[in-house]
Amino acid sequence: MTAQKPGIQLNKKGRLKHFLTTEELSRQILTEILDTAENFAGVGERAVKKVPLLRGKTIANLFFEPSTRTRTTFELAAKRLSADVLNINIEASATKKGESLLDTLQTLESMHCDMFVVRHANSGAAHFIASLVAPGIRVINAGDGRHAHPTQAMLDAFTIRRHKGGFNGLKVAIVGDIMHSRVARSEIHAFNTLGVKEVRVIAPKTLIPAYMRALGVKVFHDLKLGLKGVDAVIMLRLQRERMQGPLLPSADEFFKMYGLTEERLKVASPDVMVLHPGPINRGVEIDSEVADGPRSVILEQVSHGIAIRMAVMSLCMGSVE
Amino acid sequence: MTAQKPGIQLNKKGRLKHFLTTEELSRQILTEILDTAENFAGVGERAVKKVPLLRGKTIANLFFEPSTRTRTTFELAAKRLSADVLNINIEASATKKGESLLDTLQTLESMHCDMFVVRHANSGAAHFIASLVAPGIRVINAGDGRHAHPTQAMLDAFTIRRHKGGFNGLKVAIVGDIMHSRVARSEIHAFNTLGVKEVRVIAPKTLIPAYMRALGVKVFHDLKLGLKGVDAVIMLRLQRERMQGPLLPSADEFFKMYGLTEERLKVASPDVMVLHPGPINRGVEIDSEVADGPRSVILEQVSHGIAIRMAVMSLCMGSVE
Amino acid sequence: MTAQKPGIQLNKKGRLKHFLTTEELSRQILTEILDTAENFAGVGERAVKKVPLLRGKTIANLFFEPSTRTRTTFELAAKRLSADVLNINIEASATKKGESLLDTLQTLESMHCDMFVVRHANSGAAHFIASLVAPGIRVINAGDGRHAHPTQAMLDAFTIRRHKGGFNGLKVAIVGDIMHSRVARSEIHAFNTLGVKEVRVIAPKTLIPAYMRALGVKVFHDLKLGLKGVDAVIMLRLQRERMQGPLLPSADEFFKMYGLTEERLKVASPDVMVLHPGPINRGVEIDSEVADGPRSVILEQVSHGIAIRMAVMSLCMGSVE
Repeated sequence: MTAQKPGIQLNKKGRLKHFLTTEELSRQILTEILDTAENFAGVGERAVKKVPLLRGKTIANLFFEPSTRTRTTFELAAKRLSADVLNINIEASATKKGESLLDTLQTLESMHCDMFVVRHANSGAAHFIASLVAPGIRVINAGDGRHAHPTQAMLDAFTIRRHKGGFNGLKVAIVGDIMHSRVARSEIHAFNTLGVKEVRVIAPKTLIPAYMRALGVKVFHDLKLGLKGVDAVIMLRLQRERMQGPLLPSADEFFKMYGLTEERLKVASPDVMVLHPGPINRGVEIDSEVADGPRSVILEQVSHGIAIRMAVMSLCMGSVE
Repeated sequence: MTAQKPGIQLNKKGRLKHFLTTEELSRQILTEILDTAENFAGVGERAVKKVPLLRGKTIANLFFEPSTRTRTTFELAAKRLSADVLNINIEASATKKGESLLDTLQTLESMHCDMFVVRHANSGAAHFIASLVAPGIRVINAGDGRHAHPTQAMLDAFTIRRHKGGFNGLKVAIVGDIMHSRVARSEIHAFNTLGVKEVRVIAPKTLIPAYMRALGVKVFHDLKLGLKGVDAVIMLRLQRERMQGPLLPSADEFFKMYGLTEERLKVASPDVMVLHPGPINRGVEIDSEVADGPRSVILEQVSHGIAIRMAVMSLCMGSVE
Repeated sequence: MTAQKPGIQLNKKGRLKHFLTTEELSRQILTEILDTAENFAGVGERAVKKVPLLRGKTIANLFFEPSTRTRTTFELAAKRLSADVLNINIEASATKKGESLLDTLQTLESMHCDMFVVRHANSGAAHFIASLVAPGIRVINAGDGRHAHPTQAMLDAFTIRRHKGGFNGLKVAIVGDIMHSRVARSEIHAFNTLGVKEVRVIAPKTLIPAYMRALGVKVFHDLKLGLKGVDAVIMLRLQRERMQGPLLPSADEFFKMYGLTEERLKVASPDVMVLHPGPINRGVEIDSEVADGPRSVILEQVSHGIAIRMAVMSLCMGSVE
């Protein structure tokens, strides 16, 4: 339980205000998110999948880049909390008329929106928006450029904790294009804070940023060495459009070296968990035998994603003074 | 009341599970749908057009081909049952990322969707999806290729029953491009099962499939002969894009022979009903005088469409063990 | 309180039925809208931003031209009244299939929609639709061509009344492309009826229609002269695409003469209010210093827009016999 520096994500009492990154948050805050999600995990299995917690609140999904899957999970989370949801595709609306971002935000605030769920292609966009909004408005980062995707990291942490009971002593490997992955960045910060014993990244040199070792991460370029003894392996989704240029391997080459198969998993812990943020590229970064096998928790991750988003939404809204 | 073969549409107790086609279902099941719709028909006329039957359920409209009109009726039916609705345009989302259909379905299941309403350009798509989903998930076919459009057939049956009191002794004619019509196929099966005395199809030879007579249908190529003494005539919507090729008449030629006018209706029963699934092509397959005249029940069909969809949704959901 | 001619907007008892234009409505009716909005203005600031007034009603947003901003305000207003909302983009749906407008409307009526919110590029479209719908259906004009945008006019009136306490003795100037502005037309009628002492329009000769003086409006071509002593100035949004052709000034030229700055506001009343329908073009028709300054009520207008739309929706629905 480290001391908290009261950044933009926390209010004066140290409670979660915006959820933008896992980076600055204490183990206490991250654990509170996980514990709250535990309460919501059962809601999806009830006959009536709704709680009245955010009834009468208005949540705007501000998607500056399209992502049906992520938008759908936030929309479902909001509706199960009984909030009203506005889906706003920003490209298609205001910017066409040349409206500035600030004006768009202030307009939505004036309509008494309570929360913005922000997806943007630029790193830092959610922070920027959080710095602009009025005091009572909450901002949740649904993915900003290469920077962060904190709800994805937390649902992975939630899934791991549910299976392993906790984080102490665990070795977790993240495999793939670490360089361009907002998911990897958010996971590393979350796992470090939550007390994972060893976080590994596995990728070719050209796809691992220089600052990785400074984050206390073990770097591997060989899949077999990296997977040895791990309790959980998180496969990143291959962004084919990124796999270009002279310094990078071709996609084929990459997967020959880093694609996850049952064979390759043999060096891991016998009860290793396999995670993937989805949607998976079958036979590309992950073999179908693994994705559909007993070690895969990929579909659980989806369910947990709703619970985590309900938790983050209700915690942030609950800190409005 | 024929014996039921417990196909994919029924659960072990013989209750409706998925609604994919009118083809295998017993008269008992089809009648139960009509009777249930009768209870919902009044909801649309109440001051508060809502019943809490599916509160807290999540219904996903999976539209692989766009159809605002059909999607809207299912959305309204779901909302009036108090369910939460997700509209998912599949073309625009997952497939762009190369996600497989099965993965998309499993992802939505993991989000605890309870029901998929499926519209697809390929025949058999809804059956295929029903064969893939988890036991608790329900699938409703909102039109698949040339195969079936069962809710349309049932709303037509409902409309006829409301006016005629039942189906015994009735003669019903379906006019138009029978060959390519999923509506016609679903109607023929439903009407036969429900005990309509005589189902007729009226179209040029090139637009009537060879297996028609095997379905116990009377085939006519002459509109006047076919309409003689009928109690209800169902005009199919002309799909102009289909009316091409050397074996088929031109659209003009077709309508000179098969377009419905007051004059041509004179040979029918004096209290003949005129149905059309909409949207109508005025002055093309149907004259405005007929479409807007006293025999037309086209707008009633729309109202009944909501009631039928509410009935099918609640019956399917009610069979979850 | 003038006598009412019972036009299409009023029912037999003289109560508001459709809200299509501010033009024919009495001061009593316009004041009733403002007073009702006063009751709703607080709803947006409550913890639970919902009232159950229109629960179980179905409101269809029929947008024949896209406008995310306006659509969003009507959607929010409807949801805060607890109605179910259907967003229907007409271009993308029925007209593609060649369906006539009347058939589209009748189809939606048959689905038991209670209200149509209509946005259309053609002047008179909302009136036309109101003349077609069944007795129990209500129509609200969300902007039709150059004709009217009555909810925008009423939210401006509401904002002025909140600050000034009333309209007696006020001088209000509208600045910009009066010729093409549905907002200006609706405002002039509303302000005249509500008893504003002096309504001014300020624009180059080519952008002021000939009939303006007949409306009792004072016409100015010089910004400084026109702003002298005004209590409120309403800047119109510059539609760049309109600023072309030999008779019109270039956009640059126009703004050199008519752009609103702090300096130019000095001749106005010391407590002048600055309004703008949004989205604003910063540094174009209005300087940022003014838009963000203490005289600007632009963001209040947005909030009031929700209250006005809730008021109009509930008044129209309340007049259903």
